[in-house]
Amino acid sequence: MTDTNGKGRVLLALTGWDPQVWVEELQKAAPDRPVVLTPNGETDPGIDYAIVWKQPAGLLSKLPNLKAIFSLGAGVDHVLADTSLPDVPIVRVVSPNLTTRMSEYVVWQVLDHHRLGPRYRAQQVNRVWDEDREQKAAGDITVGIMGLGELGTDAAAKLQVMGFQVTGWSRTQKQVEGVTCHAGAEGLDSFLASADIFVVLLPLTAETNEILDLDLLKRMSKRGPLGAPVLINAGRGGLQNEADLLAALDEGLLSAVTLDVFQQEPLDPESPFWSHPKVTLTPHAAAASMPSSLIEPMARQMDAFEGGEPLINLVDRKAGY
Amino acid sequence: MTDTNGKGRVLLALTGWDPQVWVEELQKAAPDRPVVLTPNGETDPGIDYAIVWKQPAGLLSKLPNLKAIFSLGAGVDHVLADTSLPDVPIVRVVSPNLTTRMSEYVVWQVLDHHRLGPRYRAQQVNRVWDEDREQKAAGDITVGIMGLGELGTDAAAKLQVMGFQVTGWSRTQKQVEGVTCHAGAEGLDSFLASADIFVVLLPLTAETNEILDLDLLKRMSKRGPLGAPVLINAGRGGLQNEADLLAALDEGLLSAVTLDVFQQEPLDPESPFWSHPKVTLTPHAAAASMPSSLIEPMARQMDAFEGGEPLINLVDRKAGY
Repeated sequence: MTDTNGKGRVLLALTGWDPQVWVEELQKAAPDRPVVLTPNGETDPGIDYAIVWKQPAGLLSKLPNLKAIFSLGAGVDHVLADTSLPDVPIVRVVSPNLTTRMSEYVVWQVLDHHRLGPRYRAQQVNRVWDEDREQKAAGDITVGIMGLGELGTDAAAKLQVMGFQVTGWSRTQKQVEGVTCHAGAEGLDSFLASADIFVVLLPLTAETNEILDLDLLKRMSKRGPLGAPVLINAGRGGLQNEADLLAALDEGLLSAVTLDVFQQEPLDPESPFWSHPKVTLTPHAAAASMPSSLIEPMARQMDAFEGGEPLINLVDRKAGY
Repeated sequence: MTDTNGKGRVLLALTGWDPQVWVEELQKAAPDRPVVLTPNGETDPGIDYAIVWKQPAGLLSKLPNLKAIFSLGAGVDHVLADTSLPDVPIVRVVSPNLTTRMSEYVVWQVLDHHRLGPRYRAQQVNRVWDEDREQKAAGDITVGIMGLGELGTDAAAKLQVMGFQVTGWSRTQKQVEGVTCHAGAEGLDSFLASADIFVVLLPLTAETNEILDLDLLKRMSKRGPLGAPVLINAGRGGLQNEADLLAALDEGLLSAVTLDVFQQEPLDPESPFWSHPKVTLTPHAAAASMPSSLIEPMARQMDAFEGGEPLINLVDRKAGY
């Protein structure tokens, strides 16, 4: 069912985020498209699309005319967590803004470890002037990227421009310019032995749930200019076994970590991560994007769909991303 | 005068640095070239080349057969500070390693300010989870580079790959791809109004001495996504009036600074810069290069010169760089 102006109606179903900014962005991007925050009754036949971030479980299953679900994150684990999800297409957000933001974060954090940011900040606090002339350049450091989708591929290109060697790992074999690509279970050990700094941009699926456990961290066997490897997780908190991460830091299997994501967000104020000397922590802000940059492509897809075009950037539910 | 093997003799004249590593690198790069740490008498006729970092004043003027001076820094103010310098060519170091290292530093520090590094580190200390979704992408930020030589040009290219807008300023008009270039005294105001983050890579000359004073800082008039501009000085400490920098921070003319260089190095443990909340400080480490990467091109130039080739990367003494 569409509105009298012929434009399908949109339900915004968000958990934990203030919906107002998203309503406003949708009204800016599509002024004549109706938008609601709750269905008119559980089985509202007047909802055509849902834009979601961690939608309440069961909310979408009863909407008889729902045509597509649009995820406000590049990962869709938060959508698929709803076990009663109706069988309609799920559209991933693909936004140049989101991709750029993530690569900014990755290059920033890789450089912060490579250029001894934590050490120089401690020296500043202690008024110590100590340069150490024996530092390596980016070309002596290998960055290993786990996950070679839109985000991993863009980060790989930018890290190479900065001079880093780059390797990558993905579920299925990929070809990425300049990147030594490993794939699948059989390629994991060679990948884990290849890098000084690991960047995790994997989707969270049944296969990748807590993939970052002590067994895997032990297989990160390179000891390069930074000592033990550095791990940067900008993907999902569910990818990491947090007790194992802490153990790996304390046992010296990892020299440092940057974590943007956690099993529970916001992170518990009592979490040991906050004050751990080897942890840099950001509040799920790696790819914080301008709302307009996420909503605009969704509005254009709805228009195109109503004009007879197919939906694009669809999720493969079986693969989980 | 050359050694019996036909190879000119090299004097290493360093102040404040341990010479041993440099002697070893020179012996690796040119095993049959003799190297000494002091002349054999004030007027040693057996010195052909000097490799210098802040050489003692007057040391070189009495060497009758000195043919060239090689600077261990990209800037040569430390060489020209010696008013009795003999009239022989001065060779600047141009090393891909040094250029890469400087661009790493520039991109790292620009990203650290753009991506709210100081704020997130304070939040971590205080166990605060606050993301702020209204952040701009790199494309909404303009970085203004003062000094468009080897270093500034490379940094400009890499900043553009990361998505930043880039403007530049230099003594004489330059053309740099993708960069809005301003030049000279008449171009300074438009340049200073153009950027959110300023990166200083100028040579230290009579003209640029303390160019970063309160008058100039007041003309940085843009108020963008970061508020007042950010200043990053990775050039020379002599470029900055340090009392004026502190005043500009305290008056809110600058929102933050990153300083790699100071009027006096090592920085006085009593300096207010160490503990200033708006200051990020590194110990003249921006372009810390592998000694081999600096010595190797010097050894090759000496060989080529003795084979009849002209010296390259010569300093224009009148311009001061």
